[in-house]
Amino acid sequence: MSHNALTALAKSLPASVPFVGPETQERALGRAFSARLGANESQFGPSPRSIEAMAQAAQEVWQYGDPENHDLKQALAAHHNIDPGHITLGEGIDGLLLTLTRLTVASGDAILTSHGAYPTFNYHAAGNGGTLHMVPYLDDHEDPRGLAEQARLLGAKLVYFANPDNPMGSWHSADTVQELIDNLPKSSLLVLDEAYIELAPNGTAPDLRPETDNVIRLRTFSKAYGMAGARVGYAIGPKSLICAFDKLRNHFGLSRISQAGALAALKDQAYVDGIKQKVAKSRETLAQIAQDNGLIALPSATNFVTIDCGRDGDFARSVLEQMIARALFIRMPFVAPMNRCIRISCGDEAAMDLVAKALPEALKAARSA
Amino acid sequence: MSHNALTALAKSLPASVPFVGPETQERALGRAFSARLGANESQFGPSPRSIEAMAQAAQEVWQYGDPENHDLKQALAAHHNIDPGHITLGEGIDGLLLTLTRLTVASGDAILTSHGAYPTFNYHAAGNGGTLHMVPYLDDHEDPRGLAEQARLLGAKLVYFANPDNPMGSWHSADTVQELIDNLPKSSLLVLDEAYIELAPNGTAPDLRPETDNVIRLRTFSKAYGMAGARVGYAIGPKSLICAFDKLRNHFGLSRISQAGALAALKDQAYVDGIKQKVAKSRETLAQIAQDNGLIALPSATNFVTIDCGRDGDFARSVLEQMIARALFIRMPFVAPMNRCIRISCGDEAAMDLVAKALPEALKAARSA
Repeated sequence: MSHNALTALAKSLPASVPFVGPETQERALGRAFSARLGANESQFGPSPRSIEAMAQAAQEVWQYGDPENHDLKQALAAHHNIDPGHITLGEGIDGLLLTLTRLTVASGDAILTSHGAYPTFNYHAAGNGGTLHMVPYLDDHEDPRGLAEQARLLGAKLVYFANPDNPMGSWHSADTVQELIDNLPKSSLLVLDEAYIELAPNGTAPDLRPETDNVIRLRTFSKAYGMAGARVGYAIGPKSLICAFDKLRNHFGLSRISQAGALAALKDQAYVDGIKQKVAKSRETLAQIAQDNGLIALPSATNFVTIDCGRDGDFARSVLEQMIARALFIRMPFVAPMNRCIRISCGDEAAMDLVAKALPEALKAARSA
Repeated sequence: MSHNALTALAKSLPASVPFVGPETQERALGRAFSARLGANESQFGPSPRSIEAMAQAAQEVWQYGDPENHDLKQALAAHHNIDPGHITLGEGIDGLLLTLTRLTVASGDAILTSHGAYPTFNYHAAGNGGTLHMVPYLDDHEDPRGLAEQARLLGAKLVYFANPDNPMGSWHSADTVQELIDNLPKSSLLVLDEAYIELAPNGTAPDLRPETDNVIRLRTFSKAYGMAGARVGYAIGPKSLICAFDKLRNHFGLSRISQAGALAALKDQAYVDGIKQKVAKSRETLAQIAQDNGLIALPSATNFVTIDCGRDGDFARSVLEQMIARALFIRMPFVAPMNRCIRISCGDEAAMDLVAKALPEALKAARSA
């Protein structure tokens, strides 16, 4: 029964959560996973300098973090060569989506995304009373022209677009994304989720024109920087939008330790370059494992590889369950026809060996089920 | 100019923030504070076991934290001898207030607090369109009978009450608080902020009756536990309210490092007992310093002491500014007549020596201004 203090909107919202964590599954299974390859965490970890900075900051954790996130914001502004007034920080991209949807979504507003894209965006849009509309994927890619067309028809308030895409790993060129930005109606704000952008080929991100374009771009330290557990994301957008975050955000929400870690991680770009190479190698390994098992790995510009299991969603789900039964945490797309696939995060050689060993067994078990 | 994507509510909200951080002041002053005694942080820090757990967890920060906060929630349930279904975690009490007000405050709802109490509650209530009403303090205490009476007259949706109180340090007995709980109309949810409760005398907190009482109690690791920078708070309330937090919260919002640190801190209750003694001693020192300067320290059940400067708000503000000019970060109440006071956090002997040295100088300067 709903508590009587809840608003009508809160009462109407489902109790479901966007993602079940691996720890929840481990508790249900009664044992730990041998490898965490389901949440596109970076098993390679962050820069050792970041770890050292966090251990150091733990000594000073009696102090609140700087609510202006000044040092990190300045460093990000320098890194991107933009004015710090175009940047706001949040508790991961999820935290930024929470505040962004609160700022922009009123009851009944049309909100547009792709059917099968990031569920946490949908969760936060619905959490503010937005009415979700979805454009299908086109050949395992989000469909920028379909989105622009629907945005005009609906007068969509927000249009969510991830480049590269999760869960498919696919991507569009900077030119295509810029075309989407330019083709949207002026009343539509593009929410451009670039969580994986550091791992994508050069030429995937359009130039930053934070004041000109009606777009808010979301970046994170959770993927290439290897700091998912620290919860640091940032948004880049027009100053009039960015400064509005201060009206609603949890000003002291970012851990002091996380701020210190992210700053150190940002400064160690050589480490990030090394991660890109490790991720690229792991993508190749995953593609080879897929091929060895008669499956097709989709091209990926992220730190995961989506593998077409060649049959329907029920079969892919069965493969996934068999992988989980072999203590490998992986996930899969939610929506047909993408749910013919499983999705495996990149990892080190030991993790890849576990995948190579488990996948043929899982496929065999799924085929005979 | 407001960005055109903002909702009408977002456009209407002020750009002001609840608190300016000491780092912002340091940047403006061009130098670091000698002591941070303004935000009621615990200069004594957390348990060394907590620091060790956080340094250890930094190595594993590539993994998201458990979105169910399972281990910490179970430990808190055991600590309080209640069912874990009565507990939810958040990014500090501020993060919990953010989600609580989103869950319960609709446009125009009457929200009740005390005039001069915690501004971040007001910020989040207004951020959801609530209409704030305020009851005056009574003799430097929040006024539970006045609040209950106004709650009935207004049909208040939420009633905020801090025990012990910030910024005055005053407190009510458990019996008085229970009377408030019992006297509120059934339609009013009591938001009982117990951020400082571990530092208060025994008999300050009413018994936990999380299913019976229409109250949500807010606790934190920021004060007695010394982990302000880690952002870990928790709420205890009826299951039907607590489970609704899952509808809106940032599920992965709590840093993995912070969860590990809080768990270790919770387990080291002997350390917390030591902190209580250090805080009590520092309160006595601050009272002595006040007396030595002809001022009156108000009784405190917190880790700070509010000192009556004996004149009006302008004078106290001048004293505060003189303390800040002497590189001591302190704060003061915002509202008359409490703003005749300054508020100084407890600290170690070195910090207290700095206060003892600076206060007579600051008073002299303020008197001659």
